[in-house]
Amino acid sequence: MTRPDGNGTHLTPSGIRRLIREDRFGGFTNLAASDYVQGNLMIVPADAADEFEGFCASNPQALPLLGRSEPGDARIPALADDLDLRTDVGAYTVFRNGDVAAVVPDIADIWRDDLVAFVIGCSFSFETLLRRGGVRLRHLDEGNVSAMYVTTLPTVPSGRFGGPLVVSMRALTPADAIRATLLSAAQPRFHGAPVHIGIPELIGIDDLQNSYGGHGLKTLRADELPVFWACGATAQLAALHARLPFCITHHKAHMVLTDRLIEEIAA
Amino acid sequence: MTRPDGNGTHLTPSGIRRLIREDRFGGFTNLAASDYVQGNLMIVPADAADEFEGFCASNPQALPLLGRSEPGDARIPALADDLDLRTDVGAYTVFRNGDVAAVVPDIADIWRDDLVAFVIGCSFSFETLLRRGGVRLRHLDEGNVSAMYVTTLPTVPSGRFGGPLVVSMRALTPADAIRATLLSAAQPRFHGAPVHIGIPELIGIDDLQNSYGGHGLKTLRADELPVFWACGATAQLAALHARLPFCITHHKAHMVLTDRLIEEIAA
Repeated sequence: MTRPDGNGTHLTPSGIRRLIREDRFGGFTNLAASDYVQGNLMIVPADAADEFEGFCASNPQALPLLGRSEPGDARIPALADDLDLRTDVGAYTVFRNGDVAAVVPDIADIWRDDLVAFVIGCSFSFETLLRRGGVRLRHLDEGNVSAMYVTTLPTVPSGRFGGPLVVSMRALTPADAIRATLLSAAQPRFHGAPVHIGIPELIGIDDLQNSYGGHGLKTLRADELPVFWACGATAQLAALHARLPFCITHHKAHMVLTDRLIEEIAA
Repeated sequence: MTRPDGNGTHLTPSGIRRLIREDRFGGFTNLAASDYVQGNLMIVPADAADEFEGFCASNPQALPLLGRSEPGDARIPALADDLDLRTDVGAYTVFRNGDVAAVVPDIADIWRDDLVAFVIGCSFSFETLLRRGGVRLRHLDEGNVSAMYVTTLPTVPSGRFGGPLVVSMRALTPADAIRATLLSAAQPRFHGAPVHIGIPELIGIDDLQNSYGGHGLKTLRADELPVFWACGATAQLAALHARLPFCITHHKAHMVLTDRLIEEIAA
């Protein structure tokens, strides 16, 4: 678990990427270099790349595209000069034929010349903006990350890609829920406004304890509402839905760290 | 009760004011001439007028000032040429020494040369904008008005004026609650964003059946959240708090109808 006292808050993104590359940073990245944009990672074979980009375009709230690599190239210089997507993410999930095949610390040995990498906006970036706007994020105060849930809300299918919307949840006081709604709505590249608030059963979440991946803050205090945003992990479910022969994503809350300040990409 | 089939929806504001003046329109005004701005009415003696205006300025979310008359003048030409605030409101509450003294259909006989009238923005105007934005307002579909509640949230005192914030409540699905939050936030002259959502006990509302004035839609369906906005009726509680020797307000949902299109005053 990432802790506020050792989470890289005061390091630059490139410094943290170097630590990750050297296996010296094992935590979630949500509090790491929090003035900079982080992203979800999705790597697919080139013959599925345009199809996946179309799926992102059809579901921009869940999957706001921040960058796409050339085939076989694990770099996206527009996001960071020295970024190497084979080694610079803390943990990867490898999918084969629609099943999780492995969770691995790097993918240099399984990289292929036909792979295309996508980086997709992440709520960790708007969390920084929410905190700057005075919203208390209890999961961060408690050294935790937001929990994710698979909903019954559908995505807009595109080619082989489809399946349910995945959301992230934050426990907020009602006043902060209103403030967070207004602040996040102004940030379409980081998922925009919430998709749901207050009654999780209505979107197919019957038990907050049953989060996607199992991690994250899953409890509510009596003065808190659960507020749900579209989540980039939607791409992982879509990859399973598509039963791609091969694809790779970041694992849990181990995100891609970019060198772009939030202000550069924010609305 | 105002009903959709006879509520003046297709009449102009001046036409409805004439009907009110002739005692031929007795309903609430929430669906009357709904493309036009409506307002709360507050009439105070001239020696309290600046003090009341200061209270509005200190509490702009509840009391966004739309117009103020000259002393002794019951007209505010900027809001409507032929508006006569002594006769053109469906019902008035008369306060004397901090108590409700009477509810009357006009105030021509108790008008005084030292009275100053204030018209204050009203949520009925943003309701039109919410509906245009696709939000379902069940209370309107059911021929009702929004319910009001006295909260434990304080106003910012100014002179003799102070007391609790009064709010209006709308029962909304979570998706509509988010949409309504975003739409109303853009309208500071019609109360702006909600002040609370979802957990009424947190703002001192223990029983939704116990609404201020007793009227309005007070029930929630299983798929609805209660969403609360600051309300111009806050001025009525402030008048009681100030124990003014004399003041007059509109009664319940009998609002001042202006000739200003919502677009003219909206943000």
